[in-house]
Amino acid sequence: MNLHHIAIAVRNLDEALAFYQDALGLELAERRAVPEEGVEIAFLPAGEAELELLQPLSAEGGVAGFLEKRGEGLHHICLKVPDIDAAMEQLKAGGARLLSDAPKTDAHGTRYVFVHPRSAHGVLLELYEVRE
Amino acid sequence: MNLHHIAIAVRNLDEALAFYQDALGLELAERRAVPEEGVEIAFLPAGEAELELLQPLSAEGGVAGFLEKRGEGLHHICLKVPDIDAAMEQLKAGGARLLSDAPKTDAHGTRYVFVHPRSAHGVLLELYEVRE
Repeated sequence: MNLHHIAIAVRNLDEALAFYQDALGLELAERRAVPEEGVEIAFLPAGEAELELLQPLSAEGGVAGFLEKRGEGLHHICLKVPDIDAAMEQLKAGGARLLSDAPKTDAHGTRYVFVHPRSAHGVLLELYEVRE
Repeated sequence: MNLHHIAIAVRNLDEALAFYQDALGLELAERRAVPEEGVEIAFLPAGEAELELLQPLSAEGGVAGFLEKRGEGLHHICLKVPDIDAAMEQLKAGGARLLSDAPKTDAHGTRYVFVHPRSAHGVLLELYEVRE
């Protein structure tokens, strides 16, 4: 169960990249808008995992709400799992609360689910199915 | 510049391990008290990087203050750098604020420094020198 990415909520992607790319020296692999999720994302690989900077495209949605409430900072982490159905069953059996009853599917056809921060000790935890 | 670890502040290590180890299925590699930092830590590898659960040993110190103010959750992330002096120079040149003027050295003789969250867009960012 390897780490896939760490997401960081920021108000302005250009300003955040001035730090993470220019001053810190991480490489910018890709930057694109994901309108269906209401965010623009910059991907910065850091070894096997990557940092994802998230800027909301409007004042609506989860990331905008997070910024309003908590300010910029660490938003969620994502772990790769080989079988998301099995992982969800195991979590439910352990009493964990998931944000959806069934996995969702992203634009690449990858299945994912979020664990409620209340179950994961304050961490918004995403599970991403990568069959290897 | 690879990710080394993600630290998660928790109130009770046993309860957090009931989720991260038992329900989620991560492996517990090590658990030990670090009295000089005022915390007990559990290390859970997640691929190349690892999750570190931090429980304060008393009501004093940074992690206890974090829990008091923000509750449980993502506390900091740590990146490996090959040359911490060069990384610090580059960050200072870029206007970033560091939490100490010189690197500190941990019990294993490894040099590290923290970047102020104000410079890293809300993220408490640790740099850890690993010469490879």
